[in-house]
Order: sequence, then structure tokens, then C-alpha cells
Amino acid sequence: MIERREFLMTGGALALASWPLANLPVEAAQRGFMQTDNTDAFWPAGARLVISISMQMEAGAQPASGAESPLPKIDPKYPDIAATKWYEYGFKEGLPRLLDMFDRRNVKVTSHMVSAAVEKHSALAKEIVQRGHEPAGHGQTWTPQYSMTPEQERKSYADSATTIERVTGVRPVGFNAFWLRGTPRTLEILQELGYTYHIDDVSRDEPFLVNVRSKPFAVVPYTLHMNDIVNYETRYFSTDAYAADLKREFDVLYEEGAHRRRMMSVSAHDRISGRPARMRVLEDFIQYAQSRSGVAFMRKVDIANYAITSPRTVREGI
Amino acid sequence: MIERREFLMTGGALALASWPLANLPVEAAQRGFMQTDNTDAFWPAGARLVISISMQMEAGAQPASGAESPLPKIDPKYPDIAATKWYEYGFKEGLPRLLDMFDRRNVKVTSHMVSAAVEKHSALAKEIVQRGHEPAGHGQTWTPQYSMTPEQERKSYADSATTIERVTGVRPVGFNAFWLRGTPRTLEILQELGYTYHIDDVSRDEPFLVNVRSKPFAVVPYTLHMNDIVNYETRYFSTDAYAADLKREFDVLYEEGAHRRRMMSVSAHDRISGRPARMRVLEDFIQYAQSRSGVAFMRKVDIANYAITSPRTVREGI
Amino acid sequence: MIERREFLMTGGALALASWPLANLPVEAAQRGFMQTDNTDAFWPAGARLVISISMQMEAGAQPASGAESPLPKIDPKYPDIAATKWYEYGFKEGLPRLLDMFDRRNVKVTSHMVSAAVEKHSALAKEIVQRGHEPAGHGQTWTPQYSMTPEQERKSYADSATTIERVTGVRPVGFNAFWLRGTPRTLEILQELGYTYHIDDVSRDEPFLVNVRSKPFAVVPYTLHMNDIVNYETRYFSTDAYAADLKREFDVLYEEGAHRRRMMSVSAHDRISGRPARMRVLEDFIQYAQSRSGVAFMRKVDIANYAITSPRTVREGI
Amino acid sequence: MIERREFLMTGGALALASWPLANLPVEAAQRGFMQTDNTDAFWPAGARLVISISMQMEAGAQPASGAESPLPKIDPKYPDIAATKWYEYGFKEGLPRLLDMFDRRNVKVTSHMVSAAVEKHSALAKEIVQRGHEPAGHGQTWTPQYSMTPEQERKSYADSATTIERVTGVRPVGFNAFWLRGTPRTLEILQELGYTYHIDDVSRDEPFLVNVRSKPFAVVPYTLHMNDIVNYETRYFSTDAYAADLKREFDVLYEEGAHRRRMMSVSAHDRISGRPARMRVLEDFIQYAQSRSGVAFMRKVDIANYAITSPRTVREGI
Repeated sequence: MIERREFLMTGGALALASWPLANLPVEAAQRGFMQTDNTDAFWPAGARLVISISMQMEAGAQPASGAESPLPKIDPKYPDIAATKWYEYGFKEGLPRLLDMFDRRNVKVTSHMVSAAVEKHSALAKEIVQRGHEPAGHGQTWTPQYSMTPEQERKSYADSATTIERVTGVRPVGFNAFWLRGTPRTLEILQELGYTYHIDDVSRDEPFLVNVRSKPFAVVPYTLHMNDIVNYETRYFSTDAYAADLKREFDVLYEEGAHRRRMMSVSAHDRISGRPARMRVLEDFIQYAQSRSGVAFMRKVDIANYAITSPRTVREGI
Repeated sequence: MIERREFLMTGGALALASWPLANLPVEAAQRGFMQTDNTDAFWPAGARLVISISMQMEAGAQPASGAESPLPKIDPKYPDIAATKWYEYGFKEGLPRLLDMFDRRNVKVTSHMVSAAVEKHSALAKEIVQRGHEPAGHGQTWTPQYSMTPEQERKSYADSATTIERVTGVRPVGFNAFWLRGTPRTLEILQELGYTYHIDDVSRDEPFLVNVRSKPFAVVPYTLHMNDIVNYETRYFSTDAYAADLKREFDVLYEEGAHRRRMMSVSAHDRISGRPARMRVLEDFIQYAQSRSGVAFMRKVDIANYAITSPRTVREGI
Repeated sequence: MIERREFLMTGGALALASWPLANLPVEAAQRGFMQTDNTDAFWPAGARLVISISMQMEAGAQPASGAESPLPKIDPKYPDIAATKWYEYGFKEGLPRLLDMFDRRNVKVTSHMVSAAVEKHSALAKEIVQRGHEPAGHGQTWTPQYSMTPEQERKSYADSATTIERVTGVRPVGFNAFWLRGTPRTLEILQELGYTYHIDDVSRDEPFLVNVRSKPFAVVPYTLHMNDIVNYETRYFSTDAYAADLKREFDVLYEEGAHRRRMMSVSAHDRISGRPARMRVLEDFIQYAQSRSGVAFMRKVDIANYAITSPRTVREGI
Repeated sequence: MIERREFLMTGGALALASWPLANLPVEAAQRGFMQTDNTDAFWPAGARLVISISMQMEAGAQPASGAESPLPKIDPKYPDIAATKWYEYGFKEGLPRLLDMFDRRNVKVTSHMVSAAVEKHSALAKEIVQRGHEPAGHGQTWTPQYSMTPEQERKSYADSATTIERVTGVRPVGFNAFWLRGTPRTLEILQELGYTYHIDDVSRDEPFLVNVRSKPFAVVPYTLHMNDIVNYETRYFSTDAYAADLKREFDVLYEEGAHRRRMMSVSAHDRISGRPARMRVLEDFIQYAQSRSGVAFMRKVDIANYAITSPRTVREGI
């Protein structure tokens, strides 16, 4: 039996939809690879499926020109004032709207914060944490990590933790690289600096442990195909299209959750899912999930801590 | 109490759906950032949500080759006759169809006019204004503003106001740059020339004031994600997809409008939303919005004038 | 009263859905630009709306490499065998399937034929015409017209007519350029060679006449936004998305058809709309249209001939 | 009467939905090209429509950088660690999930295996075959075939068969090139090496035979427009959009199957259709198809063997 305290961060909270702890419905047995002995629980408190929401805080950290937006590209020698305003929406409207919605739905999330945005909007960053959400690293600046030298990379991750801790009062232990792209050294550096998990790995539908310097390091999978920036800004989904994808993805993982540990990862960027209709799609999805028994929304740090202590957790190279 | 005359332009009209001035439904209280004291009205006549429609008049102002269209790109040394015809639809069919629809629905809009199109189709430009719509500047020519010298930029905005006033009888006080991209000097130049607001800022869901030469300058936010050129020509939405996005966006802003000032911005280009099915999506949306109590369609000049005089208006850097 | 013989080509047929010739429903009066005196008919036999379907015959005319397909681009120095097979579907499956569907629905269309495809698949080209469809020119080869010299252009259009007449027995009088792009000389050359209309102009929702060498030349508008190659291959529509767009476009033009001459243009390429699901979307649309009274499907030559003789036809520069 | 043994591979199985062998419904007669004498069966056991599913096993074979993914492109001099994880999903989650689903639905498919993936994940490759699916060649490595020298191409196909046979115990007889693109020599080389069919030809909705060195070589058509990599990764379809396309395509081919031999080809890549919601769309489609009488799911080798022996099979150049 996993103790509750093992996966709770001080000051945090495990957001659980109200559900009975026993008598979870069991789907008709599946055969083969995915069959798993069902004599023990896969998640804390017997939850059947865990959903992890990422909320990016990026507004104001983007470069003066060349940042991605719905606008056509221009020569980056000119400041892209329109794109700057597109990003500003993230802190003026997007994050406040998402925070209110998460309160309405009693959901705690992980906020991946670019430190330059944290510096610019420190009251908002602090507010996010005070409302129960987890602060996690998302780069000191907008600079992609994959082309950094080892020294640059180490300094960036150290500075990121320092900045976030100084502003929010909580030192981050999770990390998300720019477009998920680190270097072959990323995990070692993160581990040395006290980070305990990263999310830049979409290879599984459950948390797992990898071997970093002969010690386990947790992976709490992020998502590309359930990611608002991919679906709205790259794939050009309407809200209807994304809404249907979210629900169908949930349905399958919920079914599988009867037989093995499963989690679903969803991403919400400040300036994207923070727009009115897109917030509503996410809220509708949360309500849809909460209407099923045994669904828990967990912050990534709580998932990582649980995975590290659970004997059932998948281990790669360990 | 804001007086009606303060936000009405001579000759214009405030299009209001029929609705009671009191007893607006109030949603369950929201917590946090978005909570606002509800003891006073946020909009004229107690409206709960204001919708602002932009209608671009651009047909004929585009270059002989290289203008955006659904056609594959060709070497711009050849005239793109097919694209020219694509644009001509805007004045032959698109604007007339939209104007008739706005009459049917009793909605007045803001028409962002490229002066070169105004010169070519002066009777149509005049007709737009005579039917109660607001003429606003959208560049003297198709040339992007962001790469202009200060002299070019000033001359362009001055000429734009002169041309539109000469043809339509009304001097524009609002401005929209090519793809929303001005220069760091744009607002100062506009203010000096007598413009009172611009729309090239999508950072809020309500009008606000910015500090330009120590005086307030109004921002009436435009839109990228509810913009027909973005959704139909860049994102490749079907009419069903765009229709659903419009309604879901409305629903959220309407809910929020119970507690704070909110507006929704929608864009309609002559050659794009002027196509039959796309006009109908916009008309259906207007009818959907008008079926709710407390929804007002306002021209941007009226919104700007109201924002400038209202003590509740958000002020940035002021 | 327009006589039926004036718009029928020898051997052709006017496909009319069964409908009463009088008592067409009249929508609530519209105001403004689109209002038209309704004392006379806009179309033969009092039809309220005319639909014109284009069926491209292109398979086998495309280059050995570099032709558009759903495949990623490769260096054109290698033959693109996969794309060749993609195109071959057009004559092996696509055109036969479309022809059977048009027979089922009793609809006659205009087939825009690339002569190189006509040469390769002459029995099929002949069959198209024998089943009542109109052959029209679509280039002698795949070469874009917009970069041709006057001599190349003239020879291409002359050869195109000769080839199609030799193979199908009918000399084409209509023309469609590669991606709608001709040269400033195109209409003169076409007129001199005996062509009576072209379709490469999407600026109106009705046929019209332009002045070419002081004589009227008919324009039967083609379409980009209701075009299968644009919507399926460029815009990436699902069949559901395209189906909804077609019906909504029809609904609006049908409404407008009560007060003025309106036509709807739809495009179907051999290898694209000839695929099973896409054929069905087109068939469903035809059935939807035929279920309304006063809808006529006409070949473009019949529309052009009618437009040339009708006093109501819009004239540009005449 | 075709004997069952003629189309069964040793150890394989013909997956048939339960259906009566006679009294298949016959649609209203169609005219023209597609009309066919219906006095004999088109498929084994009188099946009306055959569906062939391709399941790609590619995970781990992709290059360290530059492979297609939902991520933005980066300079390929950096390893794309995020894309690597995107691909790893294929063997960790995708293929196991698809295999379980195919078991649930009693469907056997053809698995196109890149040999480098087979080497890396040999237990999984063997499991695929042990569960009744057909192994087929899909390149020894990720290298595109279209630019290979004849020697490289021959060695690649020989090695591919050897690797797959060594690992799975079954020598592949079918082949699928990278993005369907072989060379003018591909079929000769395949035939010399003992392959009996390929799938890189989307020109028909039924299997057919081509002349290779004066002997028949079978073509079991693959698909681009019903292909998950095209629809989800290139076209950006939501699951709803793809689900509707699959069903509409089925409906038409099922109708046509009353009068002639028809097959439907669907593609499922490990890392794409193996995602939860996308697996469900494929499963829903299978259930939809199985609910109609006379629908058979066949492996491509069984289709090829049947086509080679059936006198009704279309022959090109033979």
C-alpha cells in the first residue's frame, strides 16, 4: 500500500474527482501484451486513470521577432509587434482564465515556466503556485536547449531553478525543454542540479524510470498529439476537433486503466488554451473525465514521486 | 451613467439586440483574477457583451502578383491573373452580400479600407458608409507598414485619412495595419494625425487605453483566432469548424460578461467571408448572439469613444 | 422568352431536376445591392439556380516527376513512380466511377481535358462525350500557360481543340488553364481560335460577358473554394467538411436565386473526387440540390450560350 | 469455384466476419463502365468486400535526426531526441495496443517491417507473426529506395527478406517501399528474389497483375488517402474526421462490391494509429465493417495468392 504522503508535495494537493475506492468497473478481459495482473492498485487511492495537465507560462519570454504565432513570417530584423501582443494575451487573459477554470473544477496542474516570463510577471507566477499548482522549469530564456554547450545548458537549468524558487517560493524539480529537445547530457545535468523528473519523452502512456548515473530518474510523459500548440497552431484544429480527440483518447486510456497503470497528458499554453473557446474545450474535457469514477488529476511532481517509490513502475535500463 | 451620445458617432447607430436593461442573469460567482465588482454596468445601456465585426475592403488594392490566395505561388514576374479575379470577387459579390446581410440583421460594423480599393470602387466605399458602417484606415496601399521609414509611414496614414474622407465623407479615426504590424512609431504618428484608436493588438478581450505622448490612445482589440483570413485561408477551416469556434468563443465571453467588461472581435474580409457559405456562417453567428439578452454589436469608433470616457477602462502605462 | 434551342448544343442535353415552372418560393425581400426586379426569369425554363460541375480528365498527362500528390516532394531527377500510380487512378477508377454516378443522378457536366490524357486514353475521352458530357480544353500538355510565349500559347490552344475534336468528335469551345492562370493575351487567342468562353475567373457567382476585340466573350465562373483539388489536396478537408461546405454554399445561392441570376460551380478531378468517399460526397450533394425545386445542372457550354443571348447577362467593359 | 487452400498461407488464417454465403443484397443496377456480370463470386467464400489493413513496424529504424514527426524541423546535425521518443512509442505502446485490438476483433493484418526495427525489437516482430499476422518487407533500413543503385536495391531487398525470416520464421513475399517509391527496376528485383507481390501502387481498388519479365506479379493496392500517416501527420485530421472518411469509403466500395471485385486498403503506423484515440477509430471502423454481411479482412499475401490464381483478376500488360 502506497502511503498518501509519499506522493504529496508540501503545500500541494491531490485533486481527485469524487469516486468510490472499490468496485471499479472492469472491462472484458483483454489478451496479450497489455494484460496485467489486477490484484493491486496502479495509482494512489486506487485511481483507475491519472490525468496530468501542463500549463505553460511563456508570455513575455519570446524574442522580439521570429517567435511562432498565427501571423505570416517576416524578416526578423523588424520587431514583430503584432506577435508580441499575441503573446501578451497569455498573462493578461490566458493564465487568469485558466487559473479560474482550474479552481472551478478543483484541478491542480503543473506550470512549466520560462524564467524570463517569471521575472516579468512575478506576481502572476507567485499566484499560480499559491493556488496550488506546481512550478516546473521550462528554460531560463526562450533559447532552445538542443544546441547549447554543456556549460550553457548547466547554467540555464541552475538559473531556472533559482529564479523560480526566488519568485514563487518553491524550487522546481521537473523540467520541460523547448519543444521537448534536450541534449544527450540533459538528464545528467538535471539530476546533478536536484531535478527529479523530466517530461520530454512521449514514448509511454505511464510514468517510468530511466537510469541516470546509476540512479533512477523519473519520466512523466508529456504529449504531442494532445498538445494545444501542436493541435491549434501547427495542425489547425477547430475546438470541436480537439474536443473530440481529447474525449476519445480518454475513453481508451480509461478502459486500459482497468488492467494496468495508465496516464493521460494534456498541454495548455497561456496564449493558446487561454483563449475563451479553447479554455472551454479543456474545461468540458475535465468535466467529462470527472464524471467517470476513479479519475484523478495529479501534478507531475506527485506522479514522479509516486513512480519513484512504486514497485510496479516500469524501469528502462535499470 | 454613461450618456448615449458619448459613444455615438454622428450619423452612426448602435445596433442592439432587443434585451431588457435589468435582471441580467448572473453566473455562479467565479473566484480569483477575473472577479470584479458588479455594481455598475460595463457597457452602454447595461449591455453584457459587445461584439465588434471588422469588414475589410481590400479588393483591387492587392499587387498584380504575389498577393495571398488559395492558388499555388508562382514567380511574381508573371501577372497572377487568377488571383486578381479571386480578389475582384470582393467588390463584385462579397461586400454587397455582406452589406445586405448586415442590414438584415441590423448590425453596424467597422470597415477597414485600403485606400487604393476606395479609389477604385468609390461608389461602393461611399455606400458602405451611407448604410451606417464606420470607415477606418487600412493603409493607403498594400505595402506593409512595418518596414516603412517614419516619413513613409506618416504620409501613408495622412493620405489614407484624406482619401477615405474625400470619398466617403467621413474622416477615419481608427487604424488597422497590414497583418497587424506597425512600427514602434505607429501610435505616435496616428495620434498626431487625429486618429483616436487602433486595433492591432490582440492582447485583451476588452478595449483599453495606452499612453502615447502622455495622452491616452484607445485600443479596440482585433482578432487572429476568430479571423476569417486566418481560419479559412491559413488554417483551412471548413465553415462548420469556424461556426463552432465562433459560438463557443461567444459562450465563454458572454458568461464572463456578467462579471467584467468583455468584448468579442470577429473579422470578415471582402473576398473571404463574402463567399456565400461563409457569409451564412457569420449571419448564423449573429443570430445566435442576438438570441441572448444583453448582446450589443458596436462599431469600433463607438467602443473607442466609450473606452476613453469610461472610468472602468483598463489603462496600460497610464 | 429564351428558346430552348438557344442554349442547347447539338447532341447535348440540359439536365433538369423535376420541378414546377411557376410558383417558385420567394424569400423575404432583400435590400440594397442584391435586389433585382423579379418580373422575368434568370435562367432557362425558369430555373432558380444553376449548378455547373467540372470534371477534369488529367490522368497520364502529368510529368514523370514533380506533379502534385499527397506524397512528400522528392528531387525531380528521379521518376516519381508512386505519384504516377496516384494519377493513373483517375482513368482506371475515378472517371468511370464519376461517369456512373452522373448517369445515376441524370447530370451532365463539363469535362476539362488535358489533350495528352485524351491521346493516352482516347476510348475513355470518347465515352465521356458519348454519355452526354461536354469536352472542353484544359491545355495540350501539363505545361502552365502563364509563362508561354504568344506563339506557344496559340499553338497549344489550337492543338488542344484539334486533338479533342479528333478523338471525341466534338470541337471544344470552352477553356480552363492550368491552375486558372493564363496570360494577358489568352482571351484574344481563344476567341480567334473559335472558343466562345473560358472559366478562369472566380469573380462572380453568375456567368458574364467581357469585351475581347470589341466582341463579347463569355465567362462561366470556375471555383477555388468549392474545388476538390483545393479542398482535399491543399486544404486537407475530410469528406464531412467538404460535404457541409457544399450544402451551405448551395443554400445561400439558392436563396439569392429567387431575386437574381445565380450559379454554383463545383470541381471534380479524376484522381481526387473519383475516390469512393469523395464521389459519394458529390453524389449526396447532387441529391440534396435536386430535392429542391428549380435546380438545374447545366454544362458550361450551355450556360455560355445562354449568357451570350440573354439581355440580362452582366457585361464588363462592354 | 476457388478452393480455400489456394489463398491460405500455411499458418495463416482468413478472418471473416460471420455472414451468409448467399443472398447478398444487390444494389440497383449500375450502368456503364463499372457494370460486371454477377454470375460468379469476386472473392473467396463469396465475400462481397475485402479489407486489407497494413500495420507498419518502423520504430527504432528511423535516423537519429531528420525523421518526420509532429515537431518543428531542426538542423539535422543535432540528434533529435524528442523525435526518437516519439518513434519509440511505436514498440512500447503502439504495436502492443494494435495487436490486442486486432485480437479482440479477430482480424489478421499485414505488417510491413523495416528490418532495422525487426533487429532492435525481435521479440515483438516474432510475436506479431505468432499472432497470425503476415510479415512483409519495408526496407532493410530507413533509406529511400528511389535513389538506390541497382546493386544497393537488390542487396536491400535480399537482406530484408533474410532478416525478417531469421527473426520471425516466415520469409516475406510482399514489399512496401519508403513512401511507396521504388525505381524502374524494383519489380524485377523483387520477383528475382522470390517476392510475389508489392503494394506501392494506388491506381486501383482491387488487386491486379502486372507483367514482370513475362511473368505475372501481383499488386495489392496500398492507400494514400486512407493512410494514417497521410491523414494524421500530413493532413492534420482529427480522429472524427478520419473516422468519417473511413466509413464513407467503406460504404461506397461495399455497394460496388455487389457487382465487381473491390477491396479497401487501410494503413496503420506503429507510432500513429497506435495512439489510444487513433486505435479506437480503427477498431470502430472494423466493427462497423463487420456489422455488414460479406465483409472479409484478408492479409495481403492471401489477396495476392488469390489474385494470381483467379481468372477474373485484372491483368495489365499481360
